[in-house]
Amino acid sequence: MILVSDNLQITDLKIEEALKNKDPEPIHEIVTKSIGCGAESIDINTGPLGKTASQDMTFFVNEVHKVTNLPLLLDTANPAAIEAGLKVSKNPVIINGFSLEQKKIDEILPLAKEFDVDIIGYLLNEKGHVPHDSDERFNIALELVNELEKKGIESSKLIIDPVVAPLIWENGKEQNLTLLEVIKILPDILGFPVRTIAGLSNLTVGRGNLTKRMEFERIFATMLSTCGLTMVLMNIFHKETVKTVKICKDFNRKSVFSWENDL
Amino acid sequence: MILVSDNLQITDLKIEEALKNKDPEPIHEIVTKSIGCGAESIDINTGPLGKTASQDMTFFVNEVHKVTNLPLLLDTANPAAIEAGLKVSKNPVIINGFSLEQKKIDEILPLAKEFDVDIIGYLLNEKGHVPHDSDERFNIALELVNELEKKGIESSKLIIDPVVAPLIWENGKEQNLTLLEVIKILPDILGFPVRTIAGLSNLTVGRGNLTKRMEFERIFATMLSTCGLTMVLMNIFHKETVKTVKICKDFNRKSVFSWENDL
Repeated sequence: MILVSDNLQITDLKIEEALKNKDPEPIHEIVTKSIGCGAESIDINTGPLGKTASQDMTFFVNEVHKVTNLPLLLDTANPAAIEAGLKVSKNPVIINGFSLEQKKIDEILPLAKEFDVDIIGYLLNEKGHVPHDSDERFNIALELVNELEKKGIESSKLIIDPVVAPLIWENGKEQNLTLLEVIKILPDILGFPVRTIAGLSNLTVGRGNLTKRMEFERIFATMLSTCGLTMVLMNIFHKETVKTVKICKDFNRKSVFSWENDL
Repeated sequence: MILVSDNLQITDLKIEEALKNKDPEPIHEIVTKSIGCGAESIDINTGPLGKTASQDMTFFVNEVHKVTNLPLLLDTANPAAIEAGLKVSKNPVIINGFSLEQKKIDEILPLAKEFDVDIIGYLLNEKGHVPHDSDERFNIALELVNELEKKGIESSKLIIDPVVAPLIWENGKEQNLTLLEVIKILPDILGFPVRTIAGLSNLTVGRGNLTKRMEFERIFATMLSTCGLTMVLMNIFHKETVKTVKICKDFNRKSVFSWENDL
């Protein structure tokens, strides 16, 4: 399971300020800290951005470059911002992402073809809503593959995000159980070893006892790993969760075991 | 996942002494503490026992009765001891267990028929050795079912123990990955919702940093739960592992989630 940091996001006031003032320091700081904590990819979550979307994403990507050559996830629904990021990035890029909403199929998906990069597809219906059950999820997954094919994009470029539900949703637990099942059998359903990604921070949004939230996060991370998730998008500053994911990775490694190995 | 305590065992010097002196106190104490820690079944691990096997098991079962009516696992390779326990037990009993070794098929398996109780079958070959791969494990599982049928026992009475490997074995990690896979697909292979049990304490036997051992134990418990394990046999005094299993159970419960729920 590849560790992707979700720590660089515009909802962080320091980052919002940094963008406004074109001050690179807070960006460098968060990315450097993320790498120190074990990040193997960096999600750049800029939100939708405004009129200066292209310049803003260019600023972010250029500054992240300066401290890392790790793969970047361009996390925005703004096609102009994604395109700008793709144009300037020297790092490998993953578009994060598209769904069956027509606007996204028309404006975001073609960028994956043009720039020959991986793209994340969300298991959301054409209205952008969470599906009701596994069957609907599988149908959406098949439609995502279909949309790639229609644009002449290899299906192997697709990374599926089944969309983690917050536990505090009325049916949150049930949805996440379905999601685990979906991650497990998607490769069989689609007929190729499709990669998957999940946003772990979604699980524990809202208020609640921090210790318990962290326990649920660690345990759900383990469940995701057990079901074969490829990439986990998470708060990389949560040391205990990172340690848990590293132990999961160690369980899956073919090396000889030792208690003294470097976790 | 049902929590089974493995804490009542003859290798515990206090218990060995208690048996020798027919002193019920240490037995009552361990069982009472186990229940306080969350045990939902009690494994009575007497080892092979000697000439007084029947009396010894009778003593154990009678004393455990006095403090609980939870299901008991009679954990010994001695058929006379199992029979004695079955005769006196007022609690539900599970025989733990048999394998494809001819002696066990001849002497232990018939007791499940005679007393109409569940029986654990180990995924070990006819020499009592751990199988090499998944295929061998599936074949053994099919043979276990076959042996039950030959004795006129419903296959639903079988609980399969795929035998957790110590991580410190040269191929321990690989074996445990196979084991997770086996637990996941056994119901499909056998064609009925076969129950499974795994002995978690086996994972971390041997020396090694205690904190790391506990981390691996918690994470592997979560993996087992994710793969659908029915019963986990474990050191019920490991509070953090018990908490982890309870959170796993909570994830699988259809109740509405609340951070304040009782774990």
